[in-house]
Amino acid sequence: MIVLHSPVETRLASLARAVDRSLDRYLPPATRPPARLHEAMRYSVFGGGKRLRPGLAILACEALGGARAAVLPGACALEMIHTYSLIHDDLPSMDDDDFRRGRPSCHRAFDEATAILAGDALQAEAFGTIARHVRRPALAAALAAELAEAAGASGMVGGQVLDIAGSSKSDEAALERIHRMKTAAMFRAAARMGALSAGAPPAKVKSLGVFGERLGLAFQIVDDILDVSGTAGELGKTPGKDTAQDKATYPALFGVEASRRRAELLKREALKAVSPLGRKAGALVGLAEFIVGRTR
Amino acid sequence: MIVLHSPVETRLASLARAVDRSLDRYLPPATRPPARLHEAMRYSVFGGGKRLRPGLAILACEALGGARAAVLPGACALEMIHTYSLIHDDLPSMDDDDFRRGRPSCHRAFDEATAILAGDALQAEAFGTIARHVRRPALAAALAAELAEAAGASGMVGGQVLDIAGSSKSDEAALERIHRMKTAAMFRAAARMGALSAGAPPAKVKSLGVFGERLGLAFQIVDDILDVSGTAGELGKTPGKDTAQDKATYPALFGVEASRRRAELLKREALKAVSPLGRKAGALVGLAEFIVGRTR
Repeated sequence: MIVLHSPVETRLASLARAVDRSLDRYLPPATRPPARLHEAMRYSVFGGGKRLRPGLAILACEALGGARAAVLPGACALEMIHTYSLIHDDLPSMDDDDFRRGRPSCHRAFDEATAILAGDALQAEAFGTIARHVRRPALAAALAAELAEAAGASGMVGGQVLDIAGSSKSDEAALERIHRMKTAAMFRAAARMGALSAGAPPAKVKSLGVFGERLGLAFQIVDDILDVSGTAGELGKTPGKDTAQDKATYPALFGVEASRRRAELLKREALKAVSPLGRKAGALVGLAEFIVGRTR
Repeated sequence: MIVLHSPVETRLASLARAVDRSLDRYLPPATRPPARLHEAMRYSVFGGGKRLRPGLAILACEALGGARAAVLPGACALEMIHTYSLIHDDLPSMDDDDFRRGRPSCHRAFDEATAILAGDALQAEAFGTIARHVRRPALAAALAAELAEAAGASGMVGGQVLDIAGSSKSDEAALERIHRMKTAAMFRAAARMGALSAGAPPAKVKSLGVFGERLGLAFQIVDDILDVSGTAGELGKTPGKDTAQDKATYPALFGVEASRRRAELLKREALKAVSPLGRKAGALVGLAEFIVGRTR
């Protein structure tokens, strides 16, 4: 099979390699005891993720004239948090998924206790990476505050609780709230952390935050469309899980076509937020096109 | 029953109330949605803990002339991390304990998914509290680095992995290693964070770290002795769990008497580390006497 990559895909792949190199540097080596824990952490971190959140952080930073070195610790911290959330989401008492990115999920490859603890350690490592590797203390504190808010009870974790609890009886407002907390908060934080790392003024940080949030909402809708229409091979995880678990999603509530239109609208709102950047926003525009247009 | 409190117990109770007031302020209100998550977080945080780690941080800070306001965010962060670790340790796939501090453990009072997520949110909240509430950014970054190291793969979480894996075949060196990571790392961090919050020079931070680590090792041995000899009413948790789970402990390997002697020795080593502080170490000495002398 010949796969043709668009320029933005090539760019993202290059960013992903840079992120992977830094993750490898920040994370404890797999050989250090307790090896089983470090193996589990690395198994999930290096499990084929697209690195969209760190990619967004880096592109936001570079769009605002910041240096990549300044944003890399925060970018990697975002991916550590994202990875821990996938490990915990897959647990039997949560979404109970045996596969992730085409491989056994962490608790299947190791065991449940190790998976819980690998997730816990990744979260500590995320904040530790920022504290240890961001050179300016004021920036480190600002990035940690952003990340904690996005990852915690008012963001990702809170959204997961609502998602589990509200499964079948959601209306559009409730659904968007879940998406905003569960997914968009981390995209918003990624874009804001990129802007903060570039030393951008508050108004620019805010604009990038809007970009990230709209993009995150669009990402979740596209993800749910792919869950309905994709195969296990394309998705790398069990397809149709949302339907089977009776989870409320955009395609389930409004159908695939209306969901695509909604994702397009969100993308346009995202692009509007960064349009004052002009040509400097080029890579961010490319990222948005890629996320909304992706087929896997 | 008449309970007589020693001066140090009165002091610790007063510190615990101050910590509780700050925890109440830092944590999201129980009424904020998702209420179930915030209720679960508060259920476990306000479940009757002795607040030893925040107490140690505060006493270390005050012994070195620091102000309590400077150390309170870090002190509360330590307690949030400690609480999340108890919630996750109690889970069915880990120690599987239905009781904690005389009440149903979090996953029994709520459910397993909520307990996992409440723990996850508490860890995010811990680092968020430091990032948001510590005024000097350089101190915030230093405290977050200490906490992440103590809580993560090279500390508490790593120790829990070793504890689960190594259950029955431990020798003294392996056992002390588990205790150092699982328990003493957080006590060491508490004492160091207190010293850092007081603006103490590196040599003093190091001495307080030694004090905290030796105290943490002693605490774990006393805890294991109480697990053998205590009743459920005294302990507030299921006694004899360590024996039932065939966990290696000091009393199991060397008997209660040798364990008491070891705890006393560790206490003396702790006191030696802070003896240069003279009378200013009074409260720290009292804390060490209390921890090693406690009967519940």
